Amino acid sequence: MASRLGEKLPERQFSTASAGWGSAYDDRTMLLTEIDHVAIAVHDLERAISFYETAFGASVVHREVVERDGVEEALIKVADSYVQLTAATHDDSPVAKFLAKRGEGIHHIGYRVDDCAAAVESMVAAGATPIDTEPRPGSRGTTVAFIHPKGAFGTLIELVQE
Amino acid sequence: MASRLGEKLPERQFSTASAGWGSAYDDRTMLLTEIDHVAIAVHDLERAISFYETAFGASVVHREVVERDGVEEALIKVADSYVQLTAATHDDSPVAKFLAKRGEGIHHIGYRVDDCAAAVESMVAAGATPIDTEPRPGSRGTTVAFIHPKGAFGTLIELVQE
Repeated sequence: MASRLGEKLPERQFSTASAGWGSAYDDRTMLLTEIDHVAIAVHDLERAISFYETAFGASVVHREVVERDGVEEALIKVADSYVQLTAATHDDSPVAKFLAKRGEGIHHIGYRVDDCAAAVESMVAAGATPIDTEPRPGSRGTTVAFIHPKGAFGTLIELVQE
Repeated sequence: MASRLGEKLPERQFSTASAGWGSAYDDRTMLLTEIDHVAIAVHDLERAISFYETAFGASVVHREVVERDGVEEALIKVADSYVQLTAATHDDSPVAKFLAKRGEGIHHIGYRVDDCAAAVESMVAAGATPIDTEPRPGSRGTTVAFIHPKGAFGTLIELVQE
């Protein structure tokens, strides 16, 4: 897995698209069914919630501590997607390290899929590197897998199956 | 999900929020109607497009050079939202500077609103700082305004009125 991080994506995987916008893939099923959520890392969850309430008239529909990930999340529903305000619950969590290194801001994007395992497989086949090689429980009862930003254009991606 | 909500959400956490902010806004209209897009800054637009095609079976539904912003965008439709792959068209554009400083990754989030000017006003009233004080043309015929990450929890926000 580690060796894949530094690898460039094989050229052949892109030749079809550059030749004509993915003609070989026209019949493929689009795996992404929704932008499930955008996760925003914040220092103070209450302040962030209050800002979204005041600025947008938003309200929190779900709130959860995810011990495994060392985060507390507050979800604001926007149409069929969520803004996931996320704070660290301890200093060693990845979100705490992100905050220490880069400050508050967008942490990752969650793409909703019908089949998390199949989506991981497809991303890996396209050259991406999984953080979770097997889907595992996420918040609000979902099944999720994270994909490493390296190999995915600097974007930490969470695949979310409801 | 409703039962999960009840389990995970201690009442007092909500009452605290409501005591501070929510009660006066309970009747407010939620201004955000959709996560319009997530913009991902990339060095090579063709490679990024090809990755999304290969990994997800995605296809580009709109492509546009926005001279004013110094970017070329490729939009991938996901339900009623977009993934906006964005490359710089010249070295002085904000996206070029972002790429030079932070590398590829999520650049901003676009929130869809019914009234861009009203949404800017509401955000400013909540303490945010506009980059565009007046709404102006965006890509695909939209009216947009950017809000500075400072004062918005590190998140560059674009308000998008279709």
